[in-house]
Formats: sequence, C-alpha cells, structure tokens
Amino acid sequence: MTGYSTNMRIKLPVLCLVLEGITIILFAIFVRYDQDTDALEWHKHIKNKSLSNLDNDFYYRYPSFQDVHTMIFIGFGFLMTFLKRYGFSSVAFNFLLAAFGLQWSTLIQGFFHGFHEGEIHVGIVSMINADFCTGAVLISFGAVLGKASPVQLLIMTLLEVTLFGINEYIILNVLEAKDAGGSMTIHTFGAYFGLIVSRVLYRPNLDKSRHKEGSVYHSDLFAMIGTIYLWMFWPSFNSAVVGHGDDQHRTALNTYYSLAACTLATFATSALLNHEGKLDMVHIQNAALAGGVVVGTSAEMMLTPFGSMIAGVLAGLISTLGFKFLTPLLDSKLKIQDTCGVHNLHGMPGVLAALIGALVAAFATADIYGDGMADVFPLIADGGRTAQSQAFYQAVSLLVALGFAIIGGTLVGFILKIPMLGSPPDTQCFEDEIFWEVPEEDGGHGQMAAVTAEDTEKHTLA
Amino acid sequence: MTGYSTNMRIKLPVLCLVLEGITIILFAIFVRYDQDTDALEWHKHIKNKSLSNLDNDFYYRYPSFQDVHTMIFIGFGFLMTFLKRYGFSSVAFNFLLAAFGLQWSTLIQGFFHGFHEGEIHVGIVSMINADFCTGAVLISFGAVLGKASPVQLLIMTLLEVTLFGINEYIILNVLEAKDAGGSMTIHTFGAYFGLIVSRVLYRPNLDKSRHKEGSVYHSDLFAMIGTIYLWMFWPSFNSAVVGHGDDQHRTALNTYYSLAACTLATFATSALLNHEGKLDMVHIQNAALAGGVVVGTSAEMMLTPFGSMIAGVLAGLISTLGFKFLTPLLDSKLKIQDTCGVHNLHGMPGVLAALIGALVAAFATADIYGDGMADVFPLIADGGRTAQSQAFYQAVSLLVALGFAIIGGTLVGFILKIPMLGSPPDTQCFEDEIFWEVPEEDGGHGQMAAVTAEDTEKHTLA
Amino acid sequence: MTGYSTNMRIKLPVLCLVLEGITIILFAIFVRYDQDTDALEWHKHIKNKSLSNLDNDFYYRYPSFQDVHTMIFIGFGFLMTFLKRYGFSSVAFNFLLAAFGLQWSTLIQGFFHGFHEGEIHVGIVSMINADFCTGAVLISFGAVLGKASPVQLLIMTLLEVTLFGINEYIILNVLEAKDAGGSMTIHTFGAYFGLIVSRVLYRPNLDKSRHKEGSVYHSDLFAMIGTIYLWMFWPSFNSAVVGHGDDQHRTALNTYYSLAACTLATFATSALLNHEGKLDMVHIQNAALAGGVVVGTSAEMMLTPFGSMIAGVLAGLISTLGFKFLTPLLDSKLKIQDTCGVHNLHGMPGVLAALIGALVAAFATADIYGDGMADVFPLIADGGRTAQSQAFYQAVSLLVALGFAIIGGTLVGFILKIPMLGSPPDTQCFEDEIFWEVPEEDGGHGQMAAVTAEDTEKHTLA
Repeated sequence: MTGYSTNMRIKLPVLCLVLEGITIILFAIFVRYDQDTDALEWHKHIKNKSLSNLDNDFYYRYPSFQDVHTMIFIGFGFLMTFLKRYGFSSVAFNFLLAAFGLQWSTLIQGFFHGFHEGEIHVGIVSMINADFCTGAVLISFGAVLGKASPVQLLIMTLLEVTLFGINEYIILNVLEAKDAGGSMTIHTFGAYFGLIVSRVLYRPNLDKSRHKEGSVYHSDLFAMIGTIYLWMFWPSFNSAVVGHGDDQHRTALNTYYSLAACTLATFATSALLNHEGKLDMVHIQNAALAGGVVVGTSAEMMLTPFGSMIAGVLAGLISTLGFKFLTPLLDSKLKIQDTCGVHNLHGMPGVLAALIGALVAAFATADIYGDGMADVFPLIADGGRTAQSQAFYQAVSLLVALGFAIIGGTLVGFILKIPMLGSPPDTQCFEDEIFWEVPEEDGGHGQMAAVTAEDTEKHTLA
Repeated sequence: MTGYSTNMRIKLPVLCLVLEGITIILFAIFVRYDQDTDALEWHKHIKNKSLSNLDNDFYYRYPSFQDVHTMIFIGFGFLMTFLKRYGFSSVAFNFLLAAFGLQWSTLIQGFFHGFHEGEIHVGIVSMINADFCTGAVLISFGAVLGKASPVQLLIMTLLEVTLFGINEYIILNVLEAKDAGGSMTIHTFGAYFGLIVSRVLYRPNLDKSRHKEGSVYHSDLFAMIGTIYLWMFWPSFNSAVVGHGDDQHRTALNTYYSLAACTLATFATSALLNHEGKLDMVHIQNAALAGGVVVGTSAEMMLTPFGSMIAGVLAGLISTLGFKFLTPLLDSKLKIQDTCGVHNLHGMPGVLAALIGALVAAFATADIYGDGMADVFPLIADGGRTAQSQAFYQAVSLLVALGFAIIGGTLVGFILKIPMLGSPPDTQCFEDEIFWEVPEEDGGHGQMAAVTAEDTEKHTLA
Repeated sequence: MTGYSTNMRIKLPVLCLVLEGITIILFAIFVRYDQDTDALEWHKHIKNKSLSNLDNDFYYRYPSFQDVHTMIFIGFGFLMTFLKRYGFSSVAFNFLLAAFGLQWSTLIQGFFHGFHEGEIHVGIVSMINADFCTGAVLISFGAVLGKASPVQLLIMTLLEVTLFGINEYIILNVLEAKDAGGSMTIHTFGAYFGLIVSRVLYRPNLDKSRHKEGSVYHSDLFAMIGTIYLWMFWPSFNSAVVGHGDDQHRTALNTYYSLAACTLATFATSALLNHEGKLDMVHIQNAALAGGVVVGTSAEMMLTPFGSMIAGVLAGLISTLGFKFLTPLLDSKLKIQDTCGVHNLHGMPGVLAALIGALVAAFATADIYGDGMADVFPLIADGGRTAQSQAFYQAVSLLVALGFAIIGGTLVGFILKIPMLGSPPDTQCFEDEIFWEVPEEDGGHGQMAAVTAEDTEKHTLA
C-alpha cells in the first residue's frame, strides 16, 4: 500500500540523528547555564546583592512555563486529533516537531538575542521562548496536517524556527515593538507561513482522501481536550515572559476575559450560521480560542477588562465566519488547503491582534501607566518614543511578520517539494497507516464492524 | 427530527449576544484593575510600602487559579462525558456556561462584596471567586444534564449566579462564617438548587430516552479524565483563596488526605454493594471526589490529618451508598431525576462538610491556633465571638444555603418551563444530535456497525 | 464467568477498610502538621525570624507538587490504558494504589527519615515524597498489569512502600547519595521489583489471554495522554524536592533538554527497527520518557545542557531497542512477562541514570559549583568526602536499590501467590469484565458490532 518514497526507515532516522547531533555539538560549544541556573553564579549573585532564593526567576515563571508546555504538547497535539484516521500522527508528529523545535530555537533565539560574549545563556525565560517558537511551527503544521511526511515536517521545523528567530529579532529588538503573547511573531507568522507552504504544496487531487478528512464522535472529544487546555492556559501563554508583578497579573486577567467573551460570540455565531441552529464542533474547538490570539499583543497593556472582552467578541465572530465562508473559498479560489483552519484561528485574529496592539499603544500616557510605563513601553518611559511612534512601529511589525511568513513560506514550500522527502500520495492523506503500525482490530480504519464481529467469535469460542 | 422549538438558530445567538453585550457595558461602567493589576497603582503601592514584585498576589495564587480553572473546564466538563451520546453537549455546554458564568459572577460578586466607591476591582482573587461561582452552576447542570437546552442552561446560569452572589454575601459577609472551599456556598447550594430545578422540570416520560442515559466503554474513560483532574486539584480548590502561608499550605494538605482516604472507602463500598463484588465506574468517577467536598469548610482549620481522613472515609461511604440506594429513590419517590447524581457527590457531602466545619470551629482555641487565629477565625481572634458562637453561625449558614437553594431552585425551575426555551422532547434527551452537527459516521449514535461497514466498502473500493 | 476466587465482594472491602483504619490510627498517633502548615508554629516561626508568608515552602514547591501529582494519577494511569479491554482497571487501580500508597508512605517515610521526637511532621515535602514513593509502586504495577487482582495489588503496595522506605533511607540517609528524581530509589527499584514479582507470578498459559494484550486505535490515544503528561512534567518531578533557587531551576532545565533529545532518538530508532519504516506507538508512548529517568540522579548536578542531551539520546536508544529485542527475550528466556515494558522505560534507564550520576559526581569541583556545592553535595562542601568517594557511594547505592528490588520482589511475589487473593485465571487476564461492571453496549468487549446493530434497531423503532 505504501510506495517506495514514503518508507521512513532510513530517511527519518538519519534526519533525526543528524539534527540532534548538530544540535548537541552547537549546545556544547555555545550553551551555558544562566545566572539563575548556574550553581556558582547564582550563589555569587545572591551574596553580592543580598537576595534570597525566592528572587530566582524560576519562582516567577515556572508555573507559567508548565502551562505553556501543556499548551504546546497537549493543546496543539490533541486539538489536531479531530481527524478520524490521523490521531497518531497528529499527537505524535506534534510531539516530535516541538521536541526538536524547542532545542533548535534555543540556539537560534540565543544567537539572535541572547548572545553574551559568545555564549547562549539558558534558563526559564529561554525555555518559555523556545516553547513559544515551536508554537509557530505547530500552527503551520495545522495548515498542512495530513499532507506531509515527518521528514518534510522536520525540515519545515528547522527552517521555520530559523526564520522565526530572525523575524522575532527584527520585531522585538530592532523595531522594539511589544508582542507579549506573540500575536505577530507566533500566530500571524506561523499561520501565514503555513498557509503559503500549503499553497505551494497544493494537491489538485486531494479529493481522493477527502473522505478521511472528517472527524468521528470520539475524535472530536479528543480534540476538545486540546481545545480546553489551550483555552484555559492562554492567560499563562500571554503573560509568561512579560514583566514581573502587575504586568504578568494584568496580562493574565485581560486574556481571561477576552477568551470568555470570545466563547459566547463563537457559540452565537455557530448556531446562527446553521440552518437548523445546530452548533458545529469545529467552531467550538477553534474559534473559541481566537480570544487568546486577539489580545496577544495588547494584553500586557492597559487594555481594560471590557476592552479585552470587545476584542474577544470580535475574534470569535470573525473566526467562526472564517470557518464557514473563508476556508472553502481559500481552497477553491486560492488553492490553499488549510486542514485545521489556521487562517481563522491564528491568521485573522493575529492580524487583528497586531492592529489592536498598535491602537492601544497609541493611547499610552503617563497618567494611565505611571511608573509601570518602564515595563510596558520602555522607550516611551525614557522619552525615546512618543506613544504614536510606538504605535507606528507596532504596525510596521505586523508587515514584517507577514512579509517573513510569505517569503519564508514560499521558499520552504518549494524545498518541501523535493521528491525524496516522502510526501504521502493523494490517496493516502489524512491516514495514519502510511507512517504508523496501526493496531489491526479497530484503528478507526473502517474495518471495525468486520473485525469486532470476528473478535466476538473468538471471544465466544474462548 | 428536531421540532420547531429546539431549533437554536435565533434564540441562542440572541441570548448569547445580549448577555455578552450587557456584561461588557456593565464592565465598562464598573470594573477596574485592582491594585495588583493596575500599572500605575501597583508601582505606587510597592514604592510606598517598599515591597517587591514578589509581593504581588499573582505569585501566591496564580498556580492555584490555574488548577481551579482546570477543574471547572476539564474536570466538570469531562466528568459529564460519561453519557454515550451526550459528550459534545457535556463538555461544550459546560464550557459555555462557565465562560458566561465567570463574567457574570465577576459583576455579581463585585456588587455584593467587592464594591469600592462605585468600582469593582478585579485581580487574581476575583478570578478565582468567579470560577468558584461557576462551579455551583456546573453542579446544578449535572442534575439536569441531558434534559435542558443551552438557552435554558444560560438562563439558569444568569439567575443562579445572581442568587449565588446574594447567598455567598450573607454567609461570608453577614454571618461571617468560614467556607474556604465553598462546601456550603458552592456544593450544597449548587446541588440542592439543581435538584429542585430538576424536580420542577420532572419528566414523567423520560423512559423514552433512558436507553441513552448510560455510558459506553470509551465514554467512561473520558469521564475518568474529569474525575482525576477534579481529584488531583481539589487541594488547590479548597486552598485557593484562604490566607497566605500556613493557611494555604494546611488547607491543601488536609484536602489531600481526605481525598486519599475517601478513595479507599469508595472502592470498598462499591465492591461491597455488588453481588459479584464488581466495581462500578459511576462510584469511582464520583464518590471518590466527595473527599474534596467534605472538608471544603474545615480544611482551612486545624482539622488534623487524621481528622481529614475520617471525614474522607465518611464521605466516600455515604456518597457510594447514595448512588446505590438514594438516587433511584429520589427518582421514583420524589420525582427528582438527578442525571449525574450530584446529590451524592455534592449534596450530602456538602451538608456533612458544613457540620464538620461547625464542629471543628467549636473547638478553636488560642492554644491550637496561636497568632494564626486571626487568619482562620478573625472574630474569635479579636474577641468578637467565642468558638461556640462561631460554630453556631457556621450551622446557620448551612440553613441559609439550603434555603436559598430550595427557594431559588423552585423559582428558576418554573422560569425554565417557559415553552420557547427549546427544551428537548422526552424522546431526545441525552442526545447530542438535537443541538449539534454530529459527524455522520460513528457519532456514538448506534449506527456505527452499519456505517463502518459501508465505510469499509468505500475504503476497499478506493 | 468469574470464578469464586476473583469475586472481590468481601476481600476487597475488608482489605481497604482495614488498611485505611490502621492508617488513620497511626496518623492519629504519629502525624502532626509541620512548621509550615501549623497555624501556631508558623506564626511563631515567622515572628521569631522576621520572615514573610512568602518564605513558606508551599510557594517554592506546590506547583511542582501538583505536576508530580498529575504524573502519578493522570500520567501513570492513562499510560496504562493502552490495553483494549483493561482501561477501567488501568486508570482506576492506578488511582486506588496511589491513593493508598501515598498515605502509607507518609507513615513509612516518616518513621525512617522524618521522625521528630516521636512525631511525623507533614507538609509539602512529605506530600511530594509520598507521591514519589507511589511512583515506584505504579512502575511495578506496570510489569504485572492485567495479571493481578486489586487485592494482590494493594498487598503489593503495602509491602513495596515499606521496602521502598527502608531502601530510600539507606541510600539517602546512610550512604548519603544524591538521587533528586529517584532514578535509583523509584525507577530502578520499582522496575526490578515489579519484574521479579512478575517472574514469580509467571503464567505459562498466558497465551489464552494474549489476544487481549494489544491496543486499539482509541486506547492508544488515551495512552498518549498519559505519555505527554509524564513527558511535560518530568522537569517538575526531578526538581520537586531539590534545594531552593538554582538547584530547582537547573534540575528542571536539564530534564527538559534530556527529554527533548530522547524524543528524537526514540522516533529515529523506532522507524529504523521497522522494515517498512513505520513508527510504533509503543515506543513513542514509552521510550520517549526514558529521557526523564536517565537524568533523575544527575539533573541536579552541573550536568550541562549538552550533557543532558547526550544522556537523553542514549536513553531513547536503549529503551526503544529494549522494547524491540529485550522484552520478547525476557518473556521467552527468563519467564518475565513485562506487560508495559517497564524494564525498558524504568529499568535500564534507571541503571544508566545511576551510573551517570556517579560519573558527574566524580567531577564535582569547587570551581564549578562554588557556594552551590553545599546544596548539591553537602559532604563534599564540608570536606567530609572527596568527589570520588561521593561517586563511589552513588555507585554502591545502585547496588543497594537492585538488591532490595530483587530480594523484596521475590518475597512479595511469593506472598502474592496465596490463592485467596483473587488472581484472575489465565483466560481472563487483561480483561476489565472480571473486576468491573462494564457497560453492555460497546465496552470494547468485542460485542460492539452485534450490540450496536441491535441499538440501531431500537433507535429506529423509537
């Protein structure tokens, strides 16, 4: 059933081991414990500054890190298990890509904005940022879900992480824009990157696999595990690396309200769009999360709780509408086959988030922020920028993210077309069996009735 | 298949958007960041008091908040997926009700006990309290599970949250009772409220749907996800808003031991009640959790570890006995159809918890609590009350909670009988299809054998 | 269908209640709140030392505790649900054993290394250590999964926890070895203990149940919930009880990298070992976790990030190879039937972890650790030992753990052979129905086709 080219026996092991080997060598050369993780340095530091162990950044951020970690591995992983025959690949390729991506992004982000005299210093912040970066990759994975081999996906990860690092460096360090939850650097970039890759890899004959592109009852419940975890922990995602104190607190609070409001808008829109008033699981699984994306740039700012809720409602609305009307159009008109609908969950809400971020930045005043301005907008606080010019740089950052996504996605898409990478044939998309030993009996593979009948027989005889 | 009245196309969107719109307007008027979330105020505060960012309440409570959040959305949501054909509704209506409830309760709790010169101040404590309040709603949801439309459920949420706020205000602020984990305000109130609603909505012909009221193998495993999360994080639930330091620590510890002991009692009772000695998943899924409820009032107090364990054993025992003997009686004699058995998990253990709380309060002495008395029983510490009078107020609070539940549940039950709210017909209870686009193929809808056989054919032909 | 001896009606309740009763009595006599949980003591302490509530150990360790708790109850519990007909038993016996084990180990660990003038003081550290101890029991459970009654398993827990406490006391308190994540005390001990028990309980006619020893599609997805939670939270497991500050931080960081590298090695090896290059879910579910085990002794030390990664790669490699080649050999040659392959996930990686720990300890110098030496190697810091002698004691500790496992496992195995303990017959292994009321309809019991056809009929008629 599986042709020559999709056999992963040599190419996957070689690629994994070469990537891991290079990573280890680069870690050996460049990566060192930071001040908060190094035994000698930490003790020197707290003695010099008369600090206590509680001042270690671990205690400020480790709970948020574990929430982010859960979003990356459980959230993204299970969200994609909605496909009836692609659950193994969804959760396990997600696992593989994130496990490699977080190592590689430690290096890339280290080179671009964590280099200290030839050394990359790692600790809880680099761990969170590395996880963040894999988020972008997993969003792109959502666009091509079911249509790419693990070898293609690992190569995509390698290249996308690298481009992510450059893009992030320009946005956060050169343009000095704020993007706490990465709505520009993670969501917008990841979504449009993935959509362009999907466009380049367009399959005109994907109809041969379309009957496998749906869900079954239990696969939709597995996907809801992913949804709910992403939804619950998004406040931690957006607040994980912002300033200590009020910043983390406020960011979590704003995100909490945005998500709650988005959920109501999603249920409302979903029922409204169905002629029998029935709700659609795809909307609930995805659009209800857009409330986390849409405040990803502004949640750190003084967005206000009701401002967060308005943003959330807008996100739920456009996201659900996107699933209903835009995804089919993208497919038929623009030849973009977006398996998970990442355009609706990450793309449009990411762009909206960037615009809201620019808008809120434009109204930043000392009356509102007080001494807190130094954490949120350091350049406004020290007089280097006006609020309006900060807003301008925020808007420019969106364009940079979109530009990197489009150009990067195009380049990477063409690289992924190299024949030997094991892309599945059109008849075998959305199908675990091509890359996995699937248990014989049920496997969600349509043979359940036959097999279980046979099994009943065995069972009765035994 | 679905009649006119259950079509949600207009009524659900209108209700969701009206509720969200009103909420946003009220937030805009009343809700403001509190001292720990506001950029200006926090920085002023730490400068005035020479504090550090670590003193922000976020670091004391955010991990507990996320555990509570997980209990509300994953715990309650998945616990109710045990029904074979109602998994979508269970997890997603739970999601909807909690998302609305937490917004509405921010307002209600704010009006009743968080009003500062016309403003409601929000931060991590209000977030936890809002989540807590939705817990009561979700308990009531458990009683009517499968028998109410999302419109009915949202209206129930609106009204129950409002009554919850008043009840909680009387218990905590007027009577100044202690109820750390809300055994009176959340569990007793939520359970009896839901039972009375279920009584008012009694369906004499529910037999027409009884064949759908059971579980299947995988739905019971999904439900165990809910169970285990509730069980694990209950120490965080009970300790989330108690005093800093020893209070949070002790509350978590007591709850941990109560739950562990309850689990053994549940397994023991479950096996004992079955003539073949077989365990019943319903007991394990539910009664093992009663150990969290039963110390919800007293866990903050000096209950002692072995005292917690005795409470837990009693809870597991009465809860399991309740499932076996009381639930059928409630149905046949009192016409209370309690889908999830909330009377056994939240009702009886909640009442027992209140009594244990009163008992432990009665023995509070300065010898035991030392300076910690001010946190646990401030009125005893400052001489305003004797331990015995505190115990008296604890007991009165139980009666208040029961009174509010019964009167409130009756009122709300009759309101929910308004015909246009889309209540499902007796033949379509416990059935996702009436409110959801259910995937054709399996859907846990009984057509699995036929459909998968057909699918096999397609698969073979393709 | 179930014979006399497997009826749990009397023996399980009696055992549960006797164990719980003894536990409660011993708690009443010996167990007291520690300084950080006692109202009087804590307030006296912070007044005397001018501390703040933030110094309560709760804030340093409670988030890690909840992660460990999740690993024990969700992680281990769901990892074992891979069996098609043993999901109820896997997750629920796991629940029962851990709930009893944590109470019993509080006593045992308290007697051996927490005794203060006749009292056992409990708090967050004892909670984490109690959970840790149950980890060893659950590993052993994995070896005998499907082949033992809950009564046998509870007795195993009682005895294994006791032996664990003695073994741990010798390793940590007598030999003063370091073993942050318990690679020797938990993984090596638990795995070889379980393997020996499985050897003593060898079933020559297990073939009669072998057709139930596999997975089905959805059971493999449930198992992945367990896998991913174990993987994500392992950094918390290894760091939960190490020193405050840099120690916790560094331990989490090292574990994070080891796991990520192990995942790539696992995917590589899994594809390489299959003649079609297909991945095997068993490897991904298990071997990818060996990266957490393999640094369980050394993650607290200055292992370096790239050192962690090398350890992780080795662990993934040997673990996957073990599943492919060693597990069948253990069964056929050594008569060790290792249901979950704990030898591959916990046994070999645990031994390797101990050796790596000894190696890294041998190179501990003041130049590397500075003042941090006192936390990691107090005896080296105060001149009581050289690094080399610390390494020697580390190596001796491995032998102690292996010795306790082998002798203890043998003794306990023979005790578990007592006929009245309700061991399932060879034809009924890996089968929930023998101990559970399984829902009629599907139940993963092979009757699905027939029953759902019947149900379709009912459904159509209704």
